[in-house]
Amino acid sequence: MKLWGGRFSKDLTTDTEGFTESIEVDSRMVLHDIWGSEAHAIMLAKQQIISIEDLEPIITWLNRAKEDFLTGNFQLKPELEDVHMNVETYLIEGAGREYGGKLHTARSRNDQVLVDARLYIREQLLTTHELLSQLIMTFLNIAREHFRTVMPGYTHTQHAQPITLAFWATAYASMFLRDLERLERAYERVNVNPLGSCALAGTSLPTDRQVTTKLLGFASTQEHALDIISARDFITETLFALSQMMANFSRIAEEIVYWSTYEFHMLTLDDAYALGSSIMPQKKNPCVAELTRGRVGHVYGNLLDMLTTLKGLPMGYNRDLQEDKPPLWAAFDTTQACANILTGTLCTAHFHTDRMAELVSANFSTATELANYLVQERHLAFRECHEIVGDVVGRLVQSDKDFRDLEATHSLLSEHGIDMDIETLTDVLDPISAIERNQSLGGTSPAEVERMEAISRECLQTTDIRRKTAQEDIERARQLTDQITNAVRSKQLDQAQQLIDEL
Amino acid sequence: MKLWGGRFSKDLTTDTEGFTESIEVDSRMVLHDIWGSEAHAIMLAKQQIISIEDLEPIITWLNRAKEDFLTGNFQLKPELEDVHMNVETYLIEGAGREYGGKLHTARSRNDQVLVDARLYIREQLLTTHELLSQLIMTFLNIAREHFRTVMPGYTHTQHAQPITLAFWATAYASMFLRDLERLERAYERVNVNPLGSCALAGTSLPTDRQVTTKLLGFASTQEHALDIISARDFITETLFALSQMMANFSRIAEEIVYWSTYEFHMLTLDDAYALGSSIMPQKKNPCVAELTRGRVGHVYGNLLDMLTTLKGLPMGYNRDLQEDKPPLWAAFDTTQACANILTGTLCTAHFHTDRMAELVSANFSTATELANYLVQERHLAFRECHEIVGDVVGRLVQSDKDFRDLEATHSLLSEHGIDMDIETLTDVLDPISAIERNQSLGGTSPAEVERMEAISRECLQTTDIRRKTAQEDIERARQLTDQITNAVRSKQLDQAQQLIDEL
Amino acid sequence: MKLWGGRFSKDLTTDTEGFTESIEVDSRMVLHDIWGSEAHAIMLAKQQIISIEDLEPIITWLNRAKEDFLTGNFQLKPELEDVHMNVETYLIEGAGREYGGKLHTARSRNDQVLVDARLYIREQLLTTHELLSQLIMTFLNIAREHFRTVMPGYTHTQHAQPITLAFWATAYASMFLRDLERLERAYERVNVNPLGSCALAGTSLPTDRQVTTKLLGFASTQEHALDIISARDFITETLFALSQMMANFSRIAEEIVYWSTYEFHMLTLDDAYALGSSIMPQKKNPCVAELTRGRVGHVYGNLLDMLTTLKGLPMGYNRDLQEDKPPLWAAFDTTQACANILTGTLCTAHFHTDRMAELVSANFSTATELANYLVQERHLAFRECHEIVGDVVGRLVQSDKDFRDLEATHSLLSEHGIDMDIETLTDVLDPISAIERNQSLGGTSPAEVERMEAISRECLQTTDIRRKTAQEDIERARQLTDQITNAVRSKQLDQAQQLIDEL
Amino acid sequence: MKLWGGRFSKDLTTDTEGFTESIEVDSRMVLHDIWGSEAHAIMLAKQQIISIEDLEPIITWLNRAKEDFLTGNFQLKPELEDVHMNVETYLIEGAGREYGGKLHTARSRNDQVLVDARLYIREQLLTTHELLSQLIMTFLNIAREHFRTVMPGYTHTQHAQPITLAFWATAYASMFLRDLERLERAYERVNVNPLGSCALAGTSLPTDRQVTTKLLGFASTQEHALDIISARDFITETLFALSQMMANFSRIAEEIVYWSTYEFHMLTLDDAYALGSSIMPQKKNPCVAELTRGRVGHVYGNLLDMLTTLKGLPMGYNRDLQEDKPPLWAAFDTTQACANILTGTLCTAHFHTDRMAELVSANFSTATELANYLVQERHLAFRECHEIVGDVVGRLVQSDKDFRDLEATHSLLSEHGIDMDIETLTDVLDPISAIERNQSLGGTSPAEVERMEAISRECLQTTDIRRKTAQEDIERARQLTDQITNAVRSKQLDQAQQLIDEL
Repeated sequence: MKLWGGRFSKDLTTDTEGFTESIEVDSRMVLHDIWGSEAHAIMLAKQQIISIEDLEPIITWLNRAKEDFLTGNFQLKPELEDVHMNVETYLIEGAGREYGGKLHTARSRNDQVLVDARLYIREQLLTTHELLSQLIMTFLNIAREHFRTVMPGYTHTQHAQPITLAFWATAYASMFLRDLERLERAYERVNVNPLGSCALAGTSLPTDRQVTTKLLGFASTQEHALDIISARDFITETLFALSQMMANFSRIAEEIVYWSTYEFHMLTLDDAYALGSSIMPQKKNPCVAELTRGRVGHVYGNLLDMLTTLKGLPMGYNRDLQEDKPPLWAAFDTTQACANILTGTLCTAHFHTDRMAELVSANFSTATELANYLVQERHLAFRECHEIVGDVVGRLVQSDKDFRDLEATHSLLSEHGIDMDIETLTDVLDPISAIERNQSLGGTSPAEVERMEAISRECLQTTDIRRKTAQEDIERARQLTDQITNAVRSKQLDQAQQLIDEL
Repeated sequence: MKLWGGRFSKDLTTDTEGFTESIEVDSRMVLHDIWGSEAHAIMLAKQQIISIEDLEPIITWLNRAKEDFLTGNFQLKPELEDVHMNVETYLIEGAGREYGGKLHTARSRNDQVLVDARLYIREQLLTTHELLSQLIMTFLNIAREHFRTVMPGYTHTQHAQPITLAFWATAYASMFLRDLERLERAYERVNVNPLGSCALAGTSLPTDRQVTTKLLGFASTQEHALDIISARDFITETLFALSQMMANFSRIAEEIVYWSTYEFHMLTLDDAYALGSSIMPQKKNPCVAELTRGRVGHVYGNLLDMLTTLKGLPMGYNRDLQEDKPPLWAAFDTTQACANILTGTLCTAHFHTDRMAELVSANFSTATELANYLVQERHLAFRECHEIVGDVVGRLVQSDKDFRDLEATHSLLSEHGIDMDIETLTDVLDPISAIERNQSLGGTSPAEVERMEAISRECLQTTDIRRKTAQEDIERARQLTDQITNAVRSKQLDQAQQLIDEL
Repeated sequence: MKLWGGRFSKDLTTDTEGFTESIEVDSRMVLHDIWGSEAHAIMLAKQQIISIEDLEPIITWLNRAKEDFLTGNFQLKPELEDVHMNVETYLIEGAGREYGGKLHTARSRNDQVLVDARLYIREQLLTTHELLSQLIMTFLNIAREHFRTVMPGYTHTQHAQPITLAFWATAYASMFLRDLERLERAYERVNVNPLGSCALAGTSLPTDRQVTTKLLGFASTQEHALDIISARDFITETLFALSQMMANFSRIAEEIVYWSTYEFHMLTLDDAYALGSSIMPQKKNPCVAELTRGRVGHVYGNLLDMLTTLKGLPMGYNRDLQEDKPPLWAAFDTTQACANILTGTLCTAHFHTDRMAELVSANFSTATELANYLVQERHLAFRECHEIVGDVVGRLVQSDKDFRDLEATHSLLSEHGIDMDIETLTDVLDPISAIERNQSLGGTSPAEVERMEAISRECLQTTDIRRKTAQEDIERARQLTDQITNAVRSKQLDQAQQLIDEL
Repeated sequence: MKLWGGRFSKDLTTDTEGFTESIEVDSRMVLHDIWGSEAHAIMLAKQQIISIEDLEPIITWLNRAKEDFLTGNFQLKPELEDVHMNVETYLIEGAGREYGGKLHTARSRNDQVLVDARLYIREQLLTTHELLSQLIMTFLNIAREHFRTVMPGYTHTQHAQPITLAFWATAYASMFLRDLERLERAYERVNVNPLGSCALAGTSLPTDRQVTTKLLGFASTQEHALDIISARDFITETLFALSQMMANFSRIAEEIVYWSTYEFHMLTLDDAYALGSSIMPQKKNPCVAELTRGRVGHVYGNLLDMLTTLKGLPMGYNRDLQEDKPPLWAAFDTTQACANILTGTLCTAHFHTDRMAELVSANFSTATELANYLVQERHLAFRECHEIVGDVVGRLVQSDKDFRDLEATHSLLSEHGIDMDIETLTDVLDPISAIERNQSLGGTSPAEVERMEAISRECLQTTDIRRKTAQEDIERARQLTDQITNAVRSKQLDQAQQLIDEL
């Protein structure tokens, strides 16, 4: 019979038990559940809802549960439904119902599961943040080595204008920094204390919710009890942050796949990050990038999953909400693994700078420069310059030539009444000059890219500090709790009382 | 070093291995992989690509792999990447490379994984089909008991017209029969043989693909090698069939939730299919229905996942396609569990027929009947009758009455010049008469519902036969393979050769 | 005041009217709505629910509505909510309520809207079918010209084995033929008659639903009234068929984009199917392919939209279901436009066969052939051959060579004890020989590809016939209805009655 | 021939034009496009890239375009592809290419379309913010009137504990305030200036991007040119904010639907916000709520659409990105309409407080209170109290009684050794006392709910101020631009130059 079974006249079928239990998902939250219970019990004692003497067996047995869990001696049982009932049962069996049965005073599983989830998600967000930071740093390191490595910039996957490899890498850094910011915002959304909302209505017992906020290191106490137990926007917001991050991962993955082709040949993967074929002996496949790209769907699916779950739910806790964890847990696993593998892949990849230089010269990528030159030096309307250069390119293509044939280019320009000396023409059409000249804010000039690289690096350091601060806040709260539980467990109840009074 | 490692100069990093392995997902396909290999090896022998003497150690060690797997002595190693490499490595270690190394002749993992997946999915579709059939039967059984149990039919969740519980139950049966049909169509899509397409181009070795088709019990051989290894529409089509089924599950789940409320009180769940609250002692929650409703998002997410994966993939096998299995495996687990629990829930639920009768009389559900009566007996235009009855209802509502107040109804009708005797009015407004009168094809009359119930039951029996036939086809192919492998393993090579020649 | 306004004491606010009307979406179904009403009215007359004299003004004014609509003189008014109320109002205003008010006898908007939608979707499916057929034919035509045009086959976007352009094109044909099949299955799902289910319960009036089935050309009559008005799987199934088709479109689109790059240079788009840049004069962008790829998300979104709508809906018509049309209409528009533009793009594209030939020789694509040769001629285990060839490739890559350096290849093979004469080696490594040799079912050999091309072409012709038959069935039903309505409108009521009696 | 057509030898086909144009979507951004062009032209003049004399015709004709657009005399032509080309063509036709052709100097459509979109989205976010604020205010107003209106609080759609209507309403307010916050964050993400990134690489012309930032009222200048034109996270982030908002709308919609049922009868919709049935005269359907619930799928679909589009795109502008606008425009339309209609619906709805009071007493909703009482007064462990009360409830249910039968309750408690006097029991089981007693932070006690209502109201006022400040910032920038353009148009070039110099 379940702990909640008073009004029931029958046990669940095995099917029902199997269908409703959440042990696999909950197994990641055992320590968080116990911490939440420690904090709750201390608060009950502080508010004299239970006595300090009641507290002692509760804390002692919670601690044993923790130790047993860490040594593999306390394993969650599916027939006990969830982590909460498993821990409470462990406690009651250990400390007896007269003590263990007091822990669940003034709380419900509805708020308890939110505590557990928020504590766990908090950690996962920090881990994800760190892994993404490393990836961004990888892009910045690539940039540092390649401020003057010229390559074709693409739009529509066609050569557009010359850029540098550093410009390309800093674009990714800049893009991923916004993903980092979204993780931080999700962290703020998650890091609030739901404990004390109880089932949906608060409680008539004289609780003090600020105490658990402090003990669990939450930034603040979420207020409205019904809102607390009904809402899951902190889950969807986190899932969205991860989805957008995966979307961005899929873009770099796509470029790795194509840059590694025989045709592009702009990048060779390290053998440690590429796989072979069971049948074709010559193959070296960019599987790591393909799997990253292939896994974006998992995370999109996780987001849709949770949004679907929320659709049309009335207010109040509904059991549907139990299903908030599987998609989020999965999304963390996927995104963390992808962030990590992309870092390894990019750190070790070899960029073919010669090939890049070859490509940038071969296919009219400085046509815009030529048009801009005519604007500035010949004072023609840009639209006219565009048409002239377009015509020159079109006719060069027809005769299978490109700008490297300066004579032909010069002669075609002359037909439009443009008479540039070859030296100027050479300079205008030179990709290296072109990237130097684009000195507008955010443009390709090495000075500008160096500036942006430095700013991104600085920005990354600032977020590192914020992440470490968050980790320390958690650690500090953990220690505060430990200090009290240690005193209680070692039966120094006076000292414990004093510490509790100071909360 | 991997089996495919000839051209590589470095091992994979642990991260790369962890990121690219598919052991968890593959572990469901070990027996399917071995069957596929047995069939492939037999075909190679039949075509004299390998000799019957080569076949013996291959078959023997494949059989040992199977036995070891079933007894837990052969566990897949993540560092061997996938089920294929695990089995091949087991074989090579057992039989030596001179024999074991011959198995992968004229095939690729690209077609091998499709064999495994199709064999596995085939089974899962049959299981799902059976579970859904049981659910449909449950609805038909409910119908059988309630051909004359009158209840309000709802549109917009408002009382619309009187129906019977049998009418409601047969509607679900009718709806789910289409889901069953979609499962069967997905089965046809899945049950074709991809083996022999090799990497993407077929092979120069003299294979005979019909042989493996026969040995594996596929209905036919899929032809175009490049299409075979590129396409995954058999996955998405299956996922769609499961998604639509879950959509339908969520509808009955919603009704279970609401019918179980204090307010509707049309249904009480058996205690074995309802859960309590950790804090509120009086609660009896329809968690099973809520979780079914809450899990529909998982399957929608699985479908979106796979569609996203396919987006923008060039032709040919891309490693992204490895990610086709996690969403589908998950979707099977979810839908099968939901089908099963819904059957249990509905079988044991108690329907409150008194409450249904009370509700159907209380709220104007026979208003349409009154309008129809006026059409038929008074030869008024329906639109006029609608307006008259609408006005009568509106005024009854304003005076807090309903049709049970026959006098008031009669009097309001009179004001519109309609003078019905009370007896007729009683009959017209009686819900039981109303359902009897709706004798149009597909309508509520008990005779019509009995007819539809019988047809659905018949239809279900026919699909049962089809499912059993499919299962027997698989079994027969399995036995044919076993017959040959048994002969080979017991070194009766002449007999084996003869069996092979007969293929 | 609305036609249904009898019980209401207040008009809707403008906001409510604006929020609930569906005029934009309904405007595509005006003619279908009128046809449905004609058929319904004829059935009412046949069943003597209305008289032949009642029928005359109804038919006459429905016909006028049709004419006025076609000439732009009958425009749907949003304040009349939907197409049904617009047509009924037109009718009542024209024919008077004593006649016009009779049309809605024994039907509800719940079944009426399903008739309209099914008639419209039926047409759209046929159009989509035709456009997809043209695209498939385009691939088959490409194949016909290129049975011996050798090119690299890709897996993981890396050169895998030599294939032909015809092999590539027939793979797409084979893939799209399954999409065609799914459209046909969706057609079967759609082409059933819902009319007569009325609100949810059928009717007490003596209707004959087979009559409207015949007049509207439906293949059969859908039976269960509650199932009919509750279910929308015919919408989701159609949306899934379109989604999978778009997934496949996005794959060919991706290949067009990459094949058009300077790096691949395997394809040049016709100038009529490529766009320029507003700033970069040299650009020629594959916008058509990019937009196709970019629009796949629209259709996926449409599918998920509808699945979301269905989640958790109780049985019966719920107004949520009104929202089934916007996503489906949009999906038809998108997929039809994409099918059409891909046909144009591919018909006019120029394939660079020289470049293909160059690529196929440059990058070890015949390595598998070499391994297979060793299997067949040297009787080595495939796994060993794979390793030998892998090592040879690896060492050639290190010294920046490829198979075109026969001497080096020969010498590296010798180190493995393989002594092939140069002539044999030349033949084994020749891509053209390789494709010829892959004669397995579904392989690359021209004879096999010609066979598959012929089968696909035949299959396409068969589906063309099925589509034309479906179109003729619709046309025949339309004519049958017209015959009767013409007789009625020209007041040849005896003849009309006779035709009706024959139904 | 297109303005970009220099290198092309052929016009587009009509199909290609139709497939690539974006006129419908662009038509909402005409005024934004012109403002962007005005700002860009002024910047060019300030930087002496064009002269003040060049500026005059450009500004004059841009202004005419605006006037013509507002009077319907300038309509976008699909064959001109997009809003940019339409406006530029208008300008060139008006001012001549020697002037009009200069506007596109130092910009690309790649950055121009982002300016237009960001300006438009900025406005739409403010509108959405305002409509959502009104909805929140509606909930707060409901709360104000019902601090002591007791009703059942639900979990699992089962009666859980007594709450007040104010508590319920403030929960929604609290939930929606987070949606409001997400809109503000999206606003920050959107409100940055992309202009000047040009195609992808910046420009060699001496632009000053801060000038357009100022003239267009952006909060800051986005820096990295390649990041700017590649990224669309400002679109997905906005779509997510709207999706989560719709998820929340669907929850209140669900409650409106169920509360309006005959069975719940807790709410009656105003006749102006409910619709009738075409066939059933008595029906009053909550269509407005159903459509809100039914449209959540549209917005989810819009989000997934855009996420799908981003999947696997390489860096740089790809034409796929054109498809970012249709889903977002649609999502704004849907969410704004839903916010607005929910406000109207809730403002006018009638809450049945008597029915609420009846329900709250009828079904054990104070069971937790009884358990809590035993904890506090009898010092029993909560788990024990839970079991005792559970047993009492179970036995009352079996004998068809509830807590209103105080004698029976008392007697059952006695069997557990609990002897409460009837007066205390009455008080403990009284719902009104219960809500008063739940004084924990965020609980149901009227004082606490009043406190939360006040805080939410204050919070709403603060966001109102922020929204108005944002609107004023836009207005101020608009005026600054107008001041200059007016001076230019009235040929007061000296004054114009002075204003420009001051920028």
